[in-house]
Amino acid sequence: MNKLFLLLLLTVAQAFPQTQDETQIKAIYDAALTQGKAYDWLNHLSNQIGGRLSGSVQAEQAIDYTKAQLDSLGLDRVWLQPVMVPKWVRGNPEFAYIESAPGITNNVPICALGGSVATPIGGIKANVVEVSSIEELKYLGKDKLSGKIVFFNRPMDPKFISTFDAYSGCVDQRYSGAMEAAKYNAAAIIVRSMNLRLDDFPHTGSMSYGDTPVTRRIPAAAISTNAAELLSTTLKLNPEIKFYFKQNCQQLPDVESFNVIGEIKGSTYPNEYMTVGGHLDSWDLGDGSHDDGAGCVQSMEVLRLLKITGYVPKRTIRVVLFMNEENGLRGGNKYAEEALAKNENHVFALESDSGGFSPRGFSLDCSDANFKRIQEWKTLFEPYLVHLFTKGYSGADIGPLKNPDIVLAGLVPDSQRYFDHHHAENDTFEHVNKRELQLGAATMAGLVYLIDNYGVAPTKKIKG
Amino acid sequence: MNKLFLLLLLTVAQAFPQTQDETQIKAIYDAALTQGKAYDWLNHLSNQIGGRLSGSVQAEQAIDYTKAQLDSLGLDRVWLQPVMVPKWVRGNPEFAYIESAPGITNNVPICALGGSVATPIGGIKANVVEVSSIEELKYLGKDKLSGKIVFFNRPMDPKFISTFDAYSGCVDQRYSGAMEAAKYNAAAIIVRSMNLRLDDFPHTGSMSYGDTPVTRRIPAAAISTNAAELLSTTLKLNPEIKFYFKQNCQQLPDVESFNVIGEIKGSTYPNEYMTVGGHLDSWDLGDGSHDDGAGCVQSMEVLRLLKITGYVPKRTIRVVLFMNEENGLRGGNKYAEEALAKNENHVFALESDSGGFSPRGFSLDCSDANFKRIQEWKTLFEPYLVHLFTKGYSGADIGPLKNPDIVLAGLVPDSQRYFDHHHAENDTFEHVNKRELQLGAATMAGLVYLIDNYGVAPTKKIKG
Repeated sequence: MNKLFLLLLLTVAQAFPQTQDETQIKAIYDAALTQGKAYDWLNHLSNQIGGRLSGSVQAEQAIDYTKAQLDSLGLDRVWLQPVMVPKWVRGNPEFAYIESAPGITNNVPICALGGSVATPIGGIKANVVEVSSIEELKYLGKDKLSGKIVFFNRPMDPKFISTFDAYSGCVDQRYSGAMEAAKYNAAAIIVRSMNLRLDDFPHTGSMSYGDTPVTRRIPAAAISTNAAELLSTTLKLNPEIKFYFKQNCQQLPDVESFNVIGEIKGSTYPNEYMTVGGHLDSWDLGDGSHDDGAGCVQSMEVLRLLKITGYVPKRTIRVVLFMNEENGLRGGNKYAEEALAKNENHVFALESDSGGFSPRGFSLDCSDANFKRIQEWKTLFEPYLVHLFTKGYSGADIGPLKNPDIVLAGLVPDSQRYFDHHHAENDTFEHVNKRELQLGAATMAGLVYLIDNYGVAPTKKIKG
Repeated sequence: MNKLFLLLLLTVAQAFPQTQDETQIKAIYDAALTQGKAYDWLNHLSNQIGGRLSGSVQAEQAIDYTKAQLDSLGLDRVWLQPVMVPKWVRGNPEFAYIESAPGITNNVPICALGGSVATPIGGIKANVVEVSSIEELKYLGKDKLSGKIVFFNRPMDPKFISTFDAYSGCVDQRYSGAMEAAKYNAAAIIVRSMNLRLDDFPHTGSMSYGDTPVTRRIPAAAISTNAAELLSTTLKLNPEIKFYFKQNCQQLPDVESFNVIGEIKGSTYPNEYMTVGGHLDSWDLGDGSHDDGAGCVQSMEVLRLLKITGYVPKRTIRVVLFMNEENGLRGGNKYAEEALAKNENHVFALESDSGGFSPRGFSLDCSDANFKRIQEWKTLFEPYLVHLFTKGYSGADIGPLKNPDIVLAGLVPDSQRYFDHHHAENDTFEHVNKRELQLGAATMAGLVYLIDNYGVAPTKKIKG
């Protein structure tokens, strides 16, 4: 068995000249940890600009800033790709309270969900029906729900190790709660924040009215987890208590915005495209440091790291800072449409949109052959404590590029703290650690280097 | 090759009945994430008690509190093991400034190193000689160093992936700087804080005068990384600038303190002992949440998780909360001495003293046979994103238990943020994430379960 093990090692060593790869990857990590710029860029995006909701002045400032920074890197080309985006505005701060008895009220922290309509100008006050799922609505029916505020209170399941799995198991309440409750003539909905922790931050996020007619759309807001617990307890004591809230958000006409793109032309296969990106827009409550300022500056850093380590890409490598991931995905769709229209052969796309925490590995959406190839590179990443190479979801913005040939990859950082901050007021710069951010950038650059150097495996053509 | 792979899998499956182990380990993680108590315990230790310097009132309170909590767990035995510990006190807050020219001063944050003597009551003001290593002292000699403040300013090397490696490469300045500089009649030393980040927190930590006579001991303090940069820059502009500092710390006589120990008696091999522990003392500047409140509450949680999941240990399992790791290791030494005196056969010891961050794996100090055995359990931990099983240093407090037969293990959490907080004012509760802390406890409990269930490999007796 020892002899076999040795043989396996030799095979790997032959297939991938470890010395050259190890040297290049070490150079990338060293540069990221000693000469990194991602953290400084993020400092500017977060502290000088702030939350970058699609269509906002801050989103425009972020476009100008990141384009100027890319211009300074000596790439072959930097440009803006126009895209029309929705413009939703929060308006004045929301206000809410639990009324346990006439005149006895407790103020609670809420925020409008992104895309929600406003309440009437005087707010809404109504009895509350707590549910733990959308399915529950149909058992209750119009009798029980008409005129009421529906309170979706199913918590994220703490047993999942990846907090994204816990999020997936809950987010239907936020996304579809209003359109479903409207079918039963509910007056409004309140959703427990998508947060595994008990605290006082309401977490916004996208929601949809589907094909609900405009006149029947009902207001939707998120409530902090602490306040959700309080509301639930109060309801148990007295189901007749009332909830009041007021918000004056609104949907304005679409406006023009941009994806920001930078490119290093490939030296050998210029017509094979590889992209690396994050989304430049964010929600408005915090400064969008983890979601997804981190992914943007890491993606910019990937091209910079390749350049400063002297690597000359064989393929054309692009950084794409997508606009409007949060409430429309217009940037991701636009980029893929143009790539298709121009017949650009995208062989690889990498997204970082899971926070700027310590990198653990990659989630890969690709053929078995490519997955196997990438898994064989695991040992190259192990010295950097990057161990996870798993099949799965890559990312929202690169999703529209999907085809049978492309390798889609998502950086997987440690997820434990992510939903403490996600879409909330405390998604701010001080919660990003410089080394964790830079290690993520280096990990991404390492994979980009390997894919560029070895190419992707050819896909078997399926007869049809 | 596929067939071979299958065969290997079957071998593993036979050696370790995966279903039972997987079930038990899943039960441990589920319990840790849904019914964990470690975070609540840490909240009390950190926010109700605070920093727990050996010999302090807070250290006494921590002993009482953790003993009472262990008493409530229904263990077979809980007791205090007396141990004499050094008592060093900081006294009034330190004060320091850079004097660029007579009357032109900039105050800078410093703190006395643990064990340092005080300055004269009026402080010390002297010229500064910056060095980057202890070796440099001998080239400079008494001519250049006599009467000066030696400023050790070698930064931690950011290229290391494990920040503990960067710490190891630097900490000689803090530990031995004063005793070495005293040989050249230096007046005092100032050490750049062991921190990879630029910020304003001075980081204390242990230092030693070795056999320097009491009358020749010189004061030693740490300076924040930002202030170290400022001092270095100022010195480059004008080597004649002066530095002033004042501290009135002192070493008092030893006092009695205690290790806190709880035990579940083994059902099959009661005379085989397994310990899991952290250190209950901490430095005084912060509240010692990461160093090492986290390790203490995780260790307590290990026994609790085994109990609430219904596991009946075959071997005797102890939680040991060691006193005085930071400035003496008296608790660790005492525990090992008594174990030896009582002829207790310790087969395994696990320490958590690297912060309450996301667990990545274990560092193992054991025979090759045991290392191989433990590595084969890797797949059991991979669903929990625990991948790292490496040979190396285990921990200070369990070190004195070392013998050729024992398996020593240290929990390895993600290390990137650790030295942002280590021994500084910002080692506080809000920097600990509940899930990360609880996952660490579950990971420790998983290994304790496996070692208990399968035992350690017998050591080949070496003839001699």
